[in-house]
Amino acid sequence: MNVLFIGDIVGLEGQEYVEEVLGRLSSRQKLDLIVANGENAVHGRGLNRKAAERLYDAGVEIITLGNHTFDQRELQEFIDEDARIIRPCNYPPGTPGGGFTVCKVGKKKVLVINVMGRTFLSQLDCPFRTVDAILEAHPDIKHVIVDMHAEATSEKLAMGWYLDGRVSAVLGTHTHVPTSDERVLPQGTAYITDVGMVGPRDGILGMDRDIVIGRLLSQMPARFSVAKGPRQFHAVLFELDEETGRAVNISRVPVYEP
Amino acid sequence: MNVLFIGDIVGLEGQEYVEEVLGRLSSRQKLDLIVANGENAVHGRGLNRKAAERLYDAGVEIITLGNHTFDQRELQEFIDEDARIIRPCNYPPGTPGGGFTVCKVGKKKVLVINVMGRTFLSQLDCPFRTVDAILEAHPDIKHVIVDMHAEATSEKLAMGWYLDGRVSAVLGTHTHVPTSDERVLPQGTAYITDVGMVGPRDGILGMDRDIVIGRLLSQMPARFSVAKGPRQFHAVLFELDEETGRAVNISRVPVYEP
Amino acid sequence: MNVLFIGDIVGLEGQEYVEEVLGRLSSRQKLDLIVANGENAVHGRGLNRKAAERLYDAGVEIITLGNHTFDQRELQEFIDEDARIIRPCNYPPGTPGGGFTVCKVGKKKVLVINVMGRTFLSQLDCPFRTVDAILEAHPDIKHVIVDMHAEATSEKLAMGWYLDGRVSAVLGTHTHVPTSDERVLPQGTAYITDVGMVGPRDGILGMDRDIVIGRLLSQMPARFSVAKGPRQFHAVLFELDEETGRAVNISRVPVYEP
Amino acid sequence: MNVLFIGDIVGLEGQEYVEEVLGRLSSRQKLDLIVANGENAVHGRGLNRKAAERLYDAGVEIITLGNHTFDQRELQEFIDEDARIIRPCNYPPGTPGGGFTVCKVGKKKVLVINVMGRTFLSQLDCPFRTVDAILEAHPDIKHVIVDMHAEATSEKLAMGWYLDGRVSAVLGTHTHVPTSDERVLPQGTAYITDVGMVGPRDGILGMDRDIVIGRLLSQMPARFSVAKGPRQFHAVLFELDEETGRAVNISRVPVYEP
Ligand SMILES: [Fe+2]
Ligand SMILES: [Fe+2]
Ligand SMILES: [Fe+2]
Ligand SMILES: [Fe+2]
Ligand SMILES: [Fe+2]
Ligand SMILES: [Fe+2]
Ligand SMILES: [Fe+2]
Ligand SMILES: [Fe+2]
Repeated sequence: MNVLFIGDIVGLEGQEYVEEVLGRLSSRQKLDLIVANGENAVHGRGLNRKAAERLYDAGVEIITLGNHTFDQRELQEFIDEDARIIRPCNYPPGTPGGGFTVCKVGKKKVLVINVMGRTFLSQLDCPFRTVDAILEAHPDIKHVIVDMHAEATSEKLAMGWYLDGRVSAVLGTHTHVPTSDERVLPQGTAYITDVGMVGPRDGILGMDRDIVIGRLLSQMPARFSVAKGPRQFHAVLFELDEETGRAVNISRVPVYEP
Repeated sequence: MNVLFIGDIVGLEGQEYVEEVLGRLSSRQKLDLIVANGENAVHGRGLNRKAAERLYDAGVEIITLGNHTFDQRELQEFIDEDARIIRPCNYPPGTPGGGFTVCKVGKKKVLVINVMGRTFLSQLDCPFRTVDAILEAHPDIKHVIVDMHAEATSEKLAMGWYLDGRVSAVLGTHTHVPTSDERVLPQGTAYITDVGMVGPRDGILGMDRDIVIGRLLSQMPARFSVAKGPRQFHAVLFELDEETGRAVNISRVPVYEP
Repeated sequence: MNVLFIGDIVGLEGQEYVEEVLGRLSSRQKLDLIVANGENAVHGRGLNRKAAERLYDAGVEIITLGNHTFDQRELQEFIDEDARIIRPCNYPPGTPGGGFTVCKVGKKKVLVINVMGRTFLSQLDCPFRTVDAILEAHPDIKHVIVDMHAEATSEKLAMGWYLDGRVSAVLGTHTHVPTSDERVLPQGTAYITDVGMVGPRDGILGMDRDIVIGRLLSQMPARFSVAKGPRQFHAVLFELDEETGRAVNISRVPVYEP
Repeated sequence: MNVLFIGDIVGLEGQEYVEEVLGRLSSRQKLDLIVANGENAVHGRGLNRKAAERLYDAGVEIITLGNHTFDQRELQEFIDEDARIIRPCNYPPGTPGGGFTVCKVGKKKVLVINVMGRTFLSQLDCPFRTVDAILEAHPDIKHVIVDMHAEATSEKLAMGWYLDGRVSAVLGTHTHVPTSDERVLPQGTAYITDVGMVGPRDGILGMDRDIVIGRLLSQMPARFSVAKGPRQFHAVLFELDEETGRAVNISRVPVYEP
């Protein structure tokens, strides 16, 4: 089973580039499942119906989120009805939407989990225990993909090692910069600290760099906007054993617009 | 001019692996300058005389530091006498040691600067303005290498773009995970968000992973210790134009112990 | 029922001043229950057997803790055996010690809860929901005292209002500076944002002020030690209705050594 | 010289209550100078022309600010023209407005300084050194009032002790909860960790408490609005020696609307 996981998609620019790149990739490569982080799809902040539909049309099958989950109020209106969108599972009980979803890939069930780190980032429930509880509730599913949305490399690596041998993949998101530490951990879990992003390449995390630099220099509030210019597409491709669910390999799939 | 910049060296394990790998690299490749981040050289915390000497013997010519600069009290005794060791330049006036150093590579002067980010990390002076001041004080030097020790990818990217065309290279350190976004920015500055680390590969940032995971799970204090097992070496190699100081290329140099 | 709640006791100096002041107070005033925060009792960091015994001897009946709970390893050896010591209840499951305790005052049961805020402070479970669960498990107890150990005034006020009418008192600790907003909230809960501390008055939070100022100025690591000189004692005294458990009043009890 | 310093004024409710209380206070008590923190005057976020005018009409002579300084864009249009408004002095060079101002009280010059802490709050220049520089530039002025806008009690106490004997008063703002540690430090500086606020009493920091609690419980974004209901007025009154500028006394001036 070949899975493509796409990093944080930033703005309309990111949505469009996902469309473009997936069109090409799919023709070359058999992709059994496409998952993408959509927390920045709308002007860099959150997800709405239109953006979700566009990503589905492009081939994305499951959308994960992060700290920007609820930036677009519209999401609350439809997240409970759309099983293809998940938000971090360690939000408190009662939060709109779900933290995991089960989909079918051929005859196999695949469990996709979204979880958020706490270091420098959020005040949510323990990410480790919350994932444990979801895994315990799905003892029969062997193909499990975890989007670990977190700031600190230590917390992401900790999640990778903590789940090694218990899930198929732990894929970091949120920092928008792809890391080069992708590997299959000893017990068979594909891991990368950060997948990266899709959107303008010459911005800062996809946002206009003059505004970001200006804010760091002045320490005054400023409204970020999505950058312009050539785009980048960061994703990882990994193959899972059909029977065991363990990862066979993982590789980065970077695409840069000229 | 070929420069090798080595990421955070963790523990005795890291020191030894630097020795081993530099021995091999230098025989294959002409290296005109070797710079390394040594903030974690002593049990993961700070630098002392012995560790510095060992790194010099291995071929390292300039040692940069970071948030762990003063973890070993011994450093304060000799940092002012050793121009090969620099600590972040945006520490307040009066801090032991210097934030930059000038060395000779052939006939060329090379300015090496160490600076620390503030987001999630430190309460130091503005990193951007502090680097500006150092550059202004050295108008004649065209070969300038900046170690940007920071947590947030946004702040590191901001420094890269802010200095593009004004320095030869901006190399991120501190997260211990190498990123795959190395590139020469449009105005000629080599950039990478994080170079990575040297030390045990199967730890978390080089430290024993059971202790790190245990602390995240229990939220109780625990003393970290350096991990065991096979090691990794992360560095970047970049070439600078002799005349202009601009970067011609940059590439990652990962080495993994079997 | 008259309850005295004493703020964070700092060092041996604090322990001794508790002894001294409680001796005088008890002779003037009928105190039915004495609770104290002991997280800084040992050199400013944590609690051990000797300090706990000394506080009991001085008249303290229940000791609460905070972010320094596990700074003295010794505590883990006896916290499970001593029902008079509680640590924040929102530590994860499996943490040594308990987060609440029930004691008898005359014929009445009194439930004392210790909880920790998360803003700027800790990565624990939701303090609000954790307290809810404890209250639900003790529907018969009307006298409930909550030590809300937190940094942010907003989170402490939120806890006060959240529990108003459901507990007898919400008393803030941790900042070591007494606030003057003590009041009985509309539904009968005694509240203060911070009770203050017991220990050296001319230090900073009870610690040597030159070291604290030096660290802020230099941003270099430094080991704090308890200050010297005249001491202060901060506590609140509140009266609870015997039948309903609601607070009748609350007042600060500051004592300053000449 | 009698000085009244008023804590963070929140919303229109706060502005109106300042009017009302100052009307009464001034008739009873000779006030030579009235300073107020206005960072929350407009719906809890920032200051604009209208709010400033209203505060001047009420009797306020100098307005200080804090982390909300630039929340109302309008301020940037007039802050440079109005010497009665100051923002934290440790913003970087080039920031609109000034960080201190000199006014005349009778024949005496009074220097008022606004500075912001960094712990948990901001990434500005060193507050201690920045104040030092302002003091050095005004060696002739003996009456100096410092608004230390900060989150951490340790950093505020550090500023008080650091400046003891060099300024007339260090008055903490930002937490919106008045502390009861007002005193004249040994060398003659009036000090309080936090003055408190002016605005709705039954909110949380003056804001609607259901929204604040809801956000803490849900960890979802929510727009704060100013609370309703009876108001509180927190200020400190202190007397300065005409010749030496040292503080003779300091006392809290709390007023609660029935
Ligand atoms: Fe994110
Ligand atoms: Fe993102
Ligand atoms: Fe570091
Ligand atoms: Fe490091
Ligand atoms: Fe504490
Ligand atoms: Fe404490
Ligand atoms: Fe503020
Ligand atoms: Fe404020």
